[in-house]
Amino acid sequence: MTDTDCIFCGIVSRRIPATKVYEDDAGIAFMDIGPIAEGHVLLIPRAHVATVDQLSPDEAAALLRPLPALVKAVQAATDCEGVNVLQNNGPIAHQVVQHVHFHIIPRNPGDEFHFNWPAHAYGPGRMKQLAEEIRKNL
Amino acid sequence: MTDTDCIFCGIVSRRIPATKVYEDDAGIAFMDIGPIAEGHVLLIPRAHVATVDQLSPDEAAALLRPLPALVKAVQAATDCEGVNVLQNNGPIAHQVVQHVHFHIIPRNPGDEFHFNWPAHAYGPGRMKQLAEEIRKNL
Repeated sequence: MTDTDCIFCGIVSRRIPATKVYEDDAGIAFMDIGPIAEGHVLLIPRAHVATVDQLSPDEAAALLRPLPALVKAVQAATDCEGVNVLQNNGPIAHQVVQHVHFHIIPRNPGDEFHFNWPAHAYGPGRMKQLAEEIRKNL
Repeated sequence: MTDTDCIFCGIVSRRIPATKVYEDDAGIAFMDIGPIAEGHVLLIPRAHVATVDQLSPDEAAALLRPLPALVKAVQAATDCEGVNVLQNNGPIAHQVVQHVHFHIIPRNPGDEFHFNWPAHAYGPGRMKQLAEEIRKNL
């Protein structure tokens, strides 16, 4: 399944050039050309799937099988201190290309990538109520 | 493999209570008790593995097989507009518990989770050089 307007489908079909680091039957990993840090890699499925919830269990498993090796290789190549794996669904979540992609982002002291962590607490009963709703939708 | 000092191992072994939404042979998903947004869920492997690069390909595939269904269920339960999947490796990357966990974070307009996107450009030859280093380490 391909979307002719999708730049990542263009990379899969080799219509658009990319600097690949890995590929298999399920997916491709390549260098992000607008990296948050040197060595920033994207892992995408070959099929055009907009958001992660639309992957089948088998597709997710096959796509993400090489994730550990990719993170390890990015760490080794960049000698970074840590890594964020980030996958954004929807414009509100910072998704720009509507084709599932996992960002592998090297992290180092003083780098320019920042996020906050506004942890909240649930009121009485609210967490269990939400958990029940989630289970019902599984 | 269990680390007796690890709170997530405690959840796996049922020594520490958690509000689970899903479990299988590879992993457990449960409510984050300090949620960034209502419905924030964590997916963890049963085995104590500190960072994602230390999972085997099979472990990663098995752990992440239910990720799409979990994201879909969180979306349905919270009616959120988007979702970030975030997995942090190392304190520099915001990892607090040293046991692999994938955050599923519902996103909505005006919410309190923010990150920047400091995209850079590579100088001549640098991207290809890094890609070669990454491939060598795969």
